[in-house]
Amino acid sequence: MSVEDAERTARVFKALGDPTRVRLLSMIAATPDGEACICDLTEPVGLSQPTVSHHMKQLVDAGLATREQRGRWAYYRVITDALEQASRALLP
Amino acid sequence: MSVEDAERTARVFKALGDPTRVRLLSMIAATPDGEACICDLTEPVGLSQPTVSHHMKQLVDAGLATREQRGRWAYYRVITDALEQASRALLP
Repeated sequence: MSVEDAERTARVFKALGDPTRVRLLSMIAATPDGEACICDLTEPVGLSQPTVSHHMKQLVDAGLATREQRGRWAYYRVITDALEQASRALLP
Repeated sequence: MSVEDAERTARVFKALGDPTRVRLLSMIAATPDGEACICDLTEPVGLSQPTVSHHMKQLVDAGLATREQRGRWAYYRVITDALEQASRALLP
């Protein structure tokens, strides 16, 4: 594995190396329509909206989620491919 | 997902959130017999044996590899299940 591939792969895993981000991603993936408003994510993890927003930014930057602003709120979806690709890169 | 499950899952991903550890695990998994001596891991990643040993300890502690001391050298194997379980816990 090249250094560049290893860096790309490690970035994805690093974003997941935090219990709060694991819970956020898991909650979004478990919603009926695969989408969650940030307004519904703060209470279950017991954190402020800026803190949740910061965690979500790290997941979005790692390619693990998308973010769409609609009016007042941000809505997130999980990109399941990112984790699958990172896992396949690590253990083909 | 419970807080405990999220912590356990995040621990696995955190261990993989480093390019050197990604390369080490990938190299061990790619060996013909699925096993690598630490003496063969240092040169490809360009790091000292204590540093590689420290990285490998984090992978072993996260349940991603096993370590066996044979004479002078430590030998490592990848536990592929750990990543699969963490991924399934995150995105069932």
